[in-house]
Amino acid sequence: MSLVVVGSVAYDCVETPHGKVDRMLGGACTYIALSSSYFTHTNIVGVVGDDFDPQDEAFLRSRKIDLEGLEKVPGKTFFWSGVYSEDMNDRTTLQTDLNVFADFQPKLPVAYRSHPYLFLGNIQPSLQRQVRDQMTSPRFTGGDTMNYWINGFRDELLETLKGWDFLLINDSEARLLSGETNLKRAASRILDMGPNTLVIKRGEYGAMLFRRDSYFVVPGYLLEEVFDPTGAGDCFAGGFVGYLAQCGFDLKAGHIDRRHLHRAVIYGSVMGSFCCEQFGVDRFRTLTRGEIDARFEEFKTFTEF
Amino acid sequence: MSLVVVGSVAYDCVETPHGKVDRMLGGACTYIALSSSYFTHTNIVGVVGDDFDPQDEAFLRSRKIDLEGLEKVPGKTFFWSGVYSEDMNDRTTLQTDLNVFADFQPKLPVAYRSHPYLFLGNIQPSLQRQVRDQMTSPRFTGGDTMNYWINGFRDELLETLKGWDFLLINDSEARLLSGETNLKRAASRILDMGPNTLVIKRGEYGAMLFRRDSYFVVPGYLLEEVFDPTGAGDCFAGGFVGYLAQCGFDLKAGHIDRRHLHRAVIYGSVMGSFCCEQFGVDRFRTLTRGEIDARFEEFKTFTEF
Repeated sequence: MSLVVVGSVAYDCVETPHGKVDRMLGGACTYIALSSSYFTHTNIVGVVGDDFDPQDEAFLRSRKIDLEGLEKVPGKTFFWSGVYSEDMNDRTTLQTDLNVFADFQPKLPVAYRSHPYLFLGNIQPSLQRQVRDQMTSPRFTGGDTMNYWINGFRDELLETLKGWDFLLINDSEARLLSGETNLKRAASRILDMGPNTLVIKRGEYGAMLFRRDSYFVVPGYLLEEVFDPTGAGDCFAGGFVGYLAQCGFDLKAGHIDRRHLHRAVIYGSVMGSFCCEQFGVDRFRTLTRGEIDARFEEFKTFTEF
Repeated sequence: MSLVVVGSVAYDCVETPHGKVDRMLGGACTYIALSSSYFTHTNIVGVVGDDFDPQDEAFLRSRKIDLEGLEKVPGKTFFWSGVYSEDMNDRTTLQTDLNVFADFQPKLPVAYRSHPYLFLGNIQPSLQRQVRDQMTSPRFTGGDTMNYWINGFRDELLETLKGWDFLLINDSEARLLSGETNLKRAASRILDMGPNTLVIKRGEYGAMLFRRDSYFVVPGYLLEEVFDPTGAGDCFAGGFVGYLAQCGFDLKAGHIDRRHLHRAVIYGSVMGSFCCEQFGVDRFRTLTRGEIDARFEEFKTFTEF
């Protein structure tokens, strides 16, 4: 069932120990949508400048992603540049030009408003809330945030979280948001803020899902070679929500079988792992659903006991 | 079936954010043996000074640990003192007095030589080899090592590893030993050195097991409170070898069902998690096999999908 994804569409310049690409398609919304497109019909809400390459547009369309909500305005597309450390566990931002993204006011096409699934990428919390309010009755709403909003827009963020069914952040964000170092205690605090489901991403160490009455932990997939980790967390998000949307689950209902939530975390992990195998979004130019399901089975093999 | 454990028996002074204990029973051999004693009959080979407290000896005996191989010599028992960082991911050694451990020459009682299982704690690699040579025909031999031996006694260590069925080290040691940053490639190199099974401990992030044809990864157990991580890795080792010895598996045979190896890693993780719940060896004063098996089942619940 249809998923709406809101967030940044960008051009990235990325350098890793494996090489450098000066300008490639990127942005959280792009990665999330490419990833979720393997599971469910995906609709983008974002903004690009008039420099947006028709080939990139064609690539997104080739994944059956609906671009009606991708506004094109005069100016330049959001640009980000960064370099990774030798072990790729750290990265340094060299340049951030918000460009047309600075005035992003997400507008939902009428056709999107009745879609059942909504994922709000990492943007200003009150903008996230405005988008949510434009939807008629989503079966689930969730999203991402980051240290910038947690530190500087805490009250707005807490107000926004009240309306979410799930939150998907990384471990340092979970610690910052909750004020707890221990992740189990951090999760308990965050579940008090509104969402009934919390997913914490831990990079190479995997991911965790917390609900009031249960939790699930999965280790990261062991890649022999990480080419470029850019977008891996967003691809995780796309796999997680994409799978839930594919199954038509209703996170509000409360009776969702926890195994399905666990599988959604696995599909998230699978998509994050594929993302790292090539630069930028390149892995998604060839990736098939068959490869995705094979890696899902591989997770079973190396975690079963 | 009977397991022989060789290594340090010590007194520790430990400070964590939860408190400080000036002198408590410790040492790798102690933790390994206490942990394995829940699974199989365990025999210690070690050395203590004449300051070794009869109450500590009584505690080990209460866990049915055989102390015939625990030599008592004039002088002081090995003493170690350390302090943990606020998040307990780092620790600083304040004092290391080898004392009687400096001249440790492991002597295997005759009764131990035909025992089927041997775990060689972290001591000089050629001493580890000498112990191995005294055993008549162990069904498996394995052990631990550390950066000090990897850096300074590499040739001796490599010679020793040739005779081992498994090696159990942490991630930084695996990287140092193999010269590879990527753990999957590191594992492949280490399996070329002799052992057919490699276990890599990753602290709070869990553990991995590698064999030529398969691997297994488990996340760490989420504790709400870590009191004192001292000995957790050794307790992991004790659970791992203890379970294999309990089942009577023969790691040499090659036909061992990989599920049993996976379960051994889970029991290792279970024992490591319990160790952190109280200072030093204190958790083992009350821990029951029932609690261990309940936590094993809990691992199933939070990892199944």
